[in-house]
Amino acid sequence: MIRIYRWDQASGCGRFLQLSELPTTIQEACAEQVVWWIDLENPTTEEEARIYREFLPIHPLTIEDITRIRRLPDDGQPHLPKVEEFRDYLFVITNPIPLGSTVDALEQPMQPTQLSAVLTRHVLITHHYMPLEAITSVVRYLERHDEQGERGPDYLFHLILDVQVDGYAPLLDRIVDELETIEESIYERTMASLLNRLLQVKRRILGLRKTLILEREVLARLNRGEFQLVDAREVVYYRNVYDHLVRYTELIESGREMVTDLMQSHMTAISNRLNEIMKVLAMISTVVLPMTLVAGIYGMNFEHMPELHWTVGYPLALSMMATLGIGSFVFFRWKKWI
Amino acid sequence: MIRIYRWDQASGCGRFLQLSELPTTIQEACAEQVVWWIDLENPTTEEEARIYREFLPIHPLTIEDITRIRRLPDDGQPHLPKVEEFRDYLFVITNPIPLGSTVDALEQPMQPTQLSAVLTRHVLITHHYMPLEAITSVVRYLERHDEQGERGPDYLFHLILDVQVDGYAPLLDRIVDELETIEESIYERTMASLLNRLLQVKRRILGLRKTLILEREVLARLNRGEFQLVDAREVVYYRNVYDHLVRYTELIESGREMVTDLMQSHMTAISNRLNEIMKVLAMISTVVLPMTLVAGIYGMNFEHMPELHWTVGYPLALSMMATLGIGSFVFFRWKKWI
Amino acid sequence: MIRIYRWDQASGCGRFLQLSELPTTIQEACAEQVVWWIDLENPTTEEEARIYREFLPIHPLTIEDITRIRRLPDDGQPHLPKVEEFRDYLFVITNPIPLGSTVDALEQPMQPTQLSAVLTRHVLITHHYMPLEAITSVVRYLERHDEQGERGPDYLFHLILDVQVDGYAPLLDRIVDELETIEESIYERTMASLLNRLLQVKRRILGLRKTLILEREVLARLNRGEFQLVDAREVVYYRNVYDHLVRYTELIESGREMVTDLMQSHMTAISNRLNEIMKVLAMISTVVLPMTLVAGIYGMNFEHMPELHWTVGYPLALSMMATLGIGSFVFFRWKKWI
Amino acid sequence: MIRIYRWDQASGCGRFLQLSELPTTIQEACAEQVVWWIDLENPTTEEEARIYREFLPIHPLTIEDITRIRRLPDDGQPHLPKVEEFRDYLFVITNPIPLGSTVDALEQPMQPTQLSAVLTRHVLITHHYMPLEAITSVVRYLERHDEQGERGPDYLFHLILDVQVDGYAPLLDRIVDELETIEESIYERTMASLLNRLLQVKRRILGLRKTLILEREVLARLNRGEFQLVDAREVVYYRNVYDHLVRYTELIESGREMVTDLMQSHMTAISNRLNEIMKVLAMISTVVLPMTLVAGIYGMNFEHMPELHWTVGYPLALSMMATLGIGSFVFFRWKKWI
Amino acid sequence: MIRIYRWDQASGCGRFLQLSELPTTIQEACAEQVVWWIDLENPTTEEEARIYREFLPIHPLTIEDITRIRRLPDDGQPHLPKVEEFRDYLFVITNPIPLGSTVDALEQPMQPTQLSAVLTRHVLITHHYMPLEAITSVVRYLERHDEQGERGPDYLFHLILDVQVDGYAPLLDRIVDELETIEESIYERTMASLLNRLLQVKRRILGLRKTLILEREVLARLNRGEFQLVDAREVVYYRNVYDHLVRYTELIESGREMVTDLMQSHMTAISNRLNEIMKVLAMISTVVLPMTLVAGIYGMNFEHMPELHWTVGYPLALSMMATLGIGSFVFFRWKKWI
Ligand SMILES: [Mg+2]
Ligand SMILES: [Mg+2]
Ligand SMILES: [Mg+2]
Ligand SMILES: [Mg+2]
Ligand SMILES: [Mg+2]
Ligand SMILES: [Mg+2]
Ligand SMILES: [Mg+2]
Ligand SMILES: [Mg+2]
Ligand SMILES: [Mg+2]
Ligand SMILES: [Mg+2]
Ligand SMILES: [Mg+2]
Ligand SMILES: [Mg+2]
Ligand SMILES: [Mg+2]
Ligand SMILES: [Mg+2]
Ligand SMILES: [Mg+2]
Ligand SMILES: [Mg+2]
Ligand SMILES: [Mg+2]
Ligand SMILES: [Mg+2]
Ligand SMILES: [Mg+2]
Ligand SMILES: [Mg+2]
Ligand SMILES: [Mg+2]
Ligand SMILES: [Mg+2]
Ligand SMILES: [Mg+2]
Ligand SMILES: [Mg+2]
Ligand SMILES: [Mg+2]
Ligand SMILES: [Mg+2]
Ligand SMILES: [Mg+2]
Ligand SMILES: [Mg+2]
Ligand SMILES: [Mg+2]
Ligand SMILES: [Mg+2]
Ligand SMILES: [Mg+2]
Repeated sequence: MIRIYRWDQASGCGRFLQLSELPTTIQEACAEQVVWWIDLENPTTEEEARIYREFLPIHPLTIEDITRIRRLPDDGQPHLPKVEEFRDYLFVITNPIPLGSTVDALEQPMQPTQLSAVLTRHVLITHHYMPLEAITSVVRYLERHDEQGERGPDYLFHLILDVQVDGYAPLLDRIVDELETIEESIYERTMASLLNRLLQVKRRILGLRKTLILEREVLARLNRGEFQLVDAREVVYYRNVYDHLVRYTELIESGREMVTDLMQSHMTAISNRLNEIMKVLAMISTVVLPMTLVAGIYGMNFEHMPELHWTVGYPLALSMMATLGIGSFVFFRWKKWI
Repeated sequence: MIRIYRWDQASGCGRFLQLSELPTTIQEACAEQVVWWIDLENPTTEEEARIYREFLPIHPLTIEDITRIRRLPDDGQPHLPKVEEFRDYLFVITNPIPLGSTVDALEQPMQPTQLSAVLTRHVLITHHYMPLEAITSVVRYLERHDEQGERGPDYLFHLILDVQVDGYAPLLDRIVDELETIEESIYERTMASLLNRLLQVKRRILGLRKTLILEREVLARLNRGEFQLVDAREVVYYRNVYDHLVRYTELIESGREMVTDLMQSHMTAISNRLNEIMKVLAMISTVVLPMTLVAGIYGMNFEHMPELHWTVGYPLALSMMATLGIGSFVFFRWKKWI
Repeated sequence: MIRIYRWDQASGCGRFLQLSELPTTIQEACAEQVVWWIDLENPTTEEEARIYREFLPIHPLTIEDITRIRRLPDDGQPHLPKVEEFRDYLFVITNPIPLGSTVDALEQPMQPTQLSAVLTRHVLITHHYMPLEAITSVVRYLERHDEQGERGPDYLFHLILDVQVDGYAPLLDRIVDELETIEESIYERTMASLLNRLLQVKRRILGLRKTLILEREVLARLNRGEFQLVDAREVVYYRNVYDHLVRYTELIESGREMVTDLMQSHMTAISNRLNEIMKVLAMISTVVLPMTLVAGIYGMNFEHMPELHWTVGYPLALSMMATLGIGSFVFFRWKKWI
Repeated sequence: MIRIYRWDQASGCGRFLQLSELPTTIQEACAEQVVWWIDLENPTTEEEARIYREFLPIHPLTIEDITRIRRLPDDGQPHLPKVEEFRDYLFVITNPIPLGSTVDALEQPMQPTQLSAVLTRHVLITHHYMPLEAITSVVRYLERHDEQGERGPDYLFHLILDVQVDGYAPLLDRIVDELETIEESIYERTMASLLNRLLQVKRRILGLRKTLILEREVLARLNRGEFQLVDAREVVYYRNVYDHLVRYTELIESGREMVTDLMQSHMTAISNRLNEIMKVLAMISTVVLPMTLVAGIYGMNFEHMPELHWTVGYPLALSMMATLGIGSFVFFRWKKWI
Repeated sequence: MIRIYRWDQASGCGRFLQLSELPTTIQEACAEQVVWWIDLENPTTEEEARIYREFLPIHPLTIEDITRIRRLPDDGQPHLPKVEEFRDYLFVITNPIPLGSTVDALEQPMQPTQLSAVLTRHVLITHHYMPLEAITSVVRYLERHDEQGERGPDYLFHLILDVQVDGYAPLLDRIVDELETIEESIYERTMASLLNRLLQVKRRILGLRKTLILEREVLARLNRGEFQLVDAREVVYYRNVYDHLVRYTELIESGREMVTDLMQSHMTAISNRLNEIMKVLAMISTVVLPMTLVAGIYGMNFEHMPELHWTVGYPLALSMMATLGIGSFVFFRWKKWI
């Protein structure tokens, strides 16, 4: 599906067009003072050819990077975030969370998808295989404020990045919730499953962290005034998105630290359990074994055992046992050994 | 609430004004050689509009950052410390500890708040939602030394930062005290609660550390002469604040190191306890089991057991038991096995 | 074996030649506008002398680096990846996986081999002792598209690097598969062999990681426009290879992290097993020892033990035992001690 | 106490003066070609005012830093090492070990003190609250070689730094000795006190390390020719002091590594002890429990137990016990289980 | 002992001279186009004065660094590797392994010695207290190729460095061998001595690593064209030595990683042993204790125990015991508890 938005200075307003209204080449399209945004959502190869070979011819390697997910369906991984400057365009890849994937966040591995953008002075082309919140939300915004196209492709692209980056927030919340759930149950049960779940969350954290760090790098470069296509006027907007990424990175680092702490707690809990079990064993043995010894002694069959004939022999033996049992328990307790 | 301080060269002294005395725009306000400090404490949106839209119009994104706590009450987190240069002003965010929050420091998670400052050549505007020691203390200072306004907004802002940064000291003391309390009790009890408390302190440390590192970064940039608005003459004051942050960062790093050491001590203490428990068990078993065996032997019902008919059989058996018990104990002790 | 490919502008096409068709020196060879690619696969010392001393004389230290594997057969290690600029050529070493070595990847230590390349404006000389997928695949490509020589030695070299770098992918897959196999069996058995296998994979990962990091460094330098021999036009191709190396490095880092996690899981599994074993021991002792004590008591031979004469003495004793056994079990269970 | 040294070109020699001989201001003092060194040892506030406000007026913040120990007696910590350039002087703080504090090094926390130096082209002012080896040794040197003042304040200051830095050596020796003592006793006893002592040494190491790293930073900056007040001719001397700091840093890093290793050894020693204790328990149980079972069997009161009536019943039972005991011991030993 | 080599352009060849043939000063010595190499092996102080004070006067601090080992015999440590530029010479220190010290490498701590070199445009002076392979091998080389002096002191110095750096190889081999020996025996015995040996190797590794890293730093600086005394023509030779250091650093890092892995294996092996010991104990107790209980029951002396009078009582009791023993064993086994 292709969405086409066009703003021109003459009318001062923008609107969404049909593909048939798109001029053949960018030279024709930019004769006057205009701004184009072309969005390809899960496009056919014909649509891709129309845009990337006919309308705005780009480098074959850029096309290769853009179409990575379709070309390598087995791998399924998007291209990692990057920004690359070509002679006549800027090429940016980010990894947004696709629409609807945050709900069942931790049950299956997070699968970020790929958003590829090509920017020139007058044109922004975005490309993605999955429907994205960032795109639909900016489309809705332009429907309400069509004149905003005037601020140029770099401003439009920032709007997309802004929504996209904030799309990580629910996922981060989910991770923190999960960690808190694990934390609550860490002293209850010391099951192997707990560690499994923790390592699963950790893998999720490391994956998200990698994405955040690489995107922060991309935003930092867009910020620095390294690329002329990003106007000085818009740098402050990119800086704002960068700030959000910094915050999320801090959150994810805290999450990572928390995983380490929980693992440590888990190991300590296991060791504590062992100590408790051993204490029970030591207590029982300390109390019962000496008593059993006394019983054993008076169970011997010697002919000459005067105690056996005493009337108070039996009660005496029983109290000796009780004394021994309680005594050894008290003694070890007093020595703080158990 | 808005506080307004104005110093002018003509009179050479400064005083606090009413909001009604504030000129409409900064152009009017700075016609002569003056210095303004405007402080907004938990302001209404009207007050914010009066200052940030009418008096000194600033970028919408700056307003967004300033009002973050009000806009996102659920999140509750202040914007992370940063310094940002705009064409006509410098924008600084720091995270002070709000007044009165240090007393119950460790019972609840530390909640730093947000102080946002806008600096121009003649004006300093500060904004915060909670009452701050840093602000009230500088207000009191200016009431006593009203002529100090002469040194400019950058000097006034340094005064605020100086008090603010020293506000971390009691919190750091509290953390160190807590760590020392934990340290004293680490060999007494090996409760799970100890680790919990330790991890709680650790989280506090990591949070404070993040704040300190980011603010040190901000101060380092203000130091470096990167921004023209900070006079060479005042750089030495910012360097002084920076020095304090370095000291606090060193303290917090020591605290972090100490947490790691205490965790290690805790684990070692648990292992030592286990060794002690097991030693008791081994000692009891080593002494009593062989004695019980002897008792068992002479409790057998064989017809032909000559010892049973000896007069000294019983005392002999008892001494055999004693010998065995003491002997095996001594033997294992001598082998240094228990 | 020497393969010689030559493209010239006059005819506009390229073809593979015999060694006898090679001009004596590079000066003769490059009189017209031509591109040469000379590949030495496990060459004789005569062939090396023909190329590196006669055709294109290079520095003795470069020859030393190129022939390292032959000179030091005991060590068997290739030279580590590097790029080195000389006055009249660029010298690059990479470490490809030799053909056929990925199948039995983990059974024996991965043995990357050495690919040495000398680049001038008109000539690419590659040298390797083992047959390489990267070389044969580019040879096949040039047989089909002989005119591609026109793009120069830097483009040809990029083609080789591209195939070579993707040769790491199956090895990475193999490592990830192995890690997943280990992960599945980590709670089943806690054999020492598991740790051994894990450490073996770890060593493999660290070896591959070192190669990837050094090659990424080489590619980064080729990217940066540091060397004039790499045309601006071709930099984008080198950037593409670099991107792949970044992805593989990320994968290998994940693998490394996973090894650490699996070690932790292994240790936790061992500790859990110990807890389970001790629980059995504690349970048995807790239940049986008190019962044995009762039996011991009624096995004593005192004359005056009234219970012994009761008709219900025996059943009473048995139920006392049962009560004690079940009771102590229930008690400790209730205290959550076992 | 104030010491004043003055060298002048006219006489070519230097001597120590009384405070009354000091000119009122530096302008008077430096009319001719002279070199001054003024040392304030635990001075009164009047002495400080005489030097820092009258003789050579310095920035109030510098005075604040210099007098930190007196102003904050509760904190007791010196200002961390730093170098700071002002318009007309260079300000350096280092943290020397005070005289006599190395003897009882590990019994109480190392307490470095503060040495503050102000350097101009003609004057060196040093300030400290405790008597310092570095100062007295340079005083003695100047008494013997009074003409050395000719080389300027930067040379004099280097002499002080040189002695000061070498003052860390005995402390480092003490730490290494302590670590070696701990190492020797690590397998003897596994007391909690050992870990305590180790952590105490570690804290000492981390404190010293922080000082060394910050001073190395200071020396590195003095080396780099960053400050004009340090003559190119003297840079080599500062480089020499820097070298010593590098060596000490390497030593302290080794000490830190050794602490980590000793902790690991300690934990392993505890685990080994546990294994040994458990082995004793397992051995006793394995040998004695089966023997006791046999005794129990022949202690049963069945009417029809033919063995009881055999003449060889008793010796047979005893040998059966011996066989069982030895047998199960040998069996488990052979299985390498104990 | 002093060795003196001199090459002059007039004759085009070099030869070794007697000390008496050495001109008094470097000015005399370098009147014509010559190259000198002066090697001081464990020289007397007179010889040092002849060279460093008379022939080529150098800075007193350089002399101090050169003579460190003699000045501080107690410390015994060489000066750490460094390169230092003076106005008229370059001063380099490296730490070679002295001749014959590699054989008994691990039995005693590796003791690298110090090689100090002073380089000018025409003169190379080397100084060392122990005989060095690097020196004797270059002497032998110059005896065979006396004309090589033509390439200058920087080339001669590179020859020395090349041999010296390769002198680390046998030591590295020795460390790897030792680690492999330890690895083989890690599951056999879990003696404390193993950890001791491992920590000893680790200390050796860390020592060598420090040397390698600092020397790599020195070589990197000599490479970078930072010092004019190293001709562009010779940089490639220094780069070659640097490459070797990179390889050795990689090897030593692998060794370090391996030490960590072996420690982990050792701890796991200890834990596994504990599990095995406990399993034996649990097995014995599980089987024997219930049987003993049955024996105890039928050893009670109640008057009314019908089973005691049954003819099949005894066999029944024995089979009950067998059933209980086997049963509880099978039950716990089936539950996978032991
Ligand atoms: Mg990463
Ligand atoms: Mg970054
Ligand atoms: Mg923000
Ligand atoms: Mg950050
Ligand atoms: Mg950041
Ligand atoms: Mg961390
Ligand atoms: Mg650990
Ligand atoms: Mg953090
Ligand atoms: Mg920082
Ligand atoms: Mg300070
Ligand atoms: Mg610091
Ligand atoms: Mg710092
Ligand atoms: Mg620290
Ligand atoms: Mg790299
Ligand atoms: Mg790619
Ligand atoms: Mg990366
Ligand atoms: Mg990268
Ligand atoms: Mg990672
Ligand atoms: Mg530090
Ligand atoms: Mg440093
Ligand atoms: Mg030195
Ligand atoms: Mg260092
Ligand atoms: Mg250094
Ligand atoms: Mg180290
Ligand atoms: Mg080092
Ligand atoms: Mg280096
Ligand atoms: Mg090499
Ligand atoms: Mg390296
Ligand atoms: Mg390297
Ligand atoms: Mg490595
Ligand atoms: Mg560890």
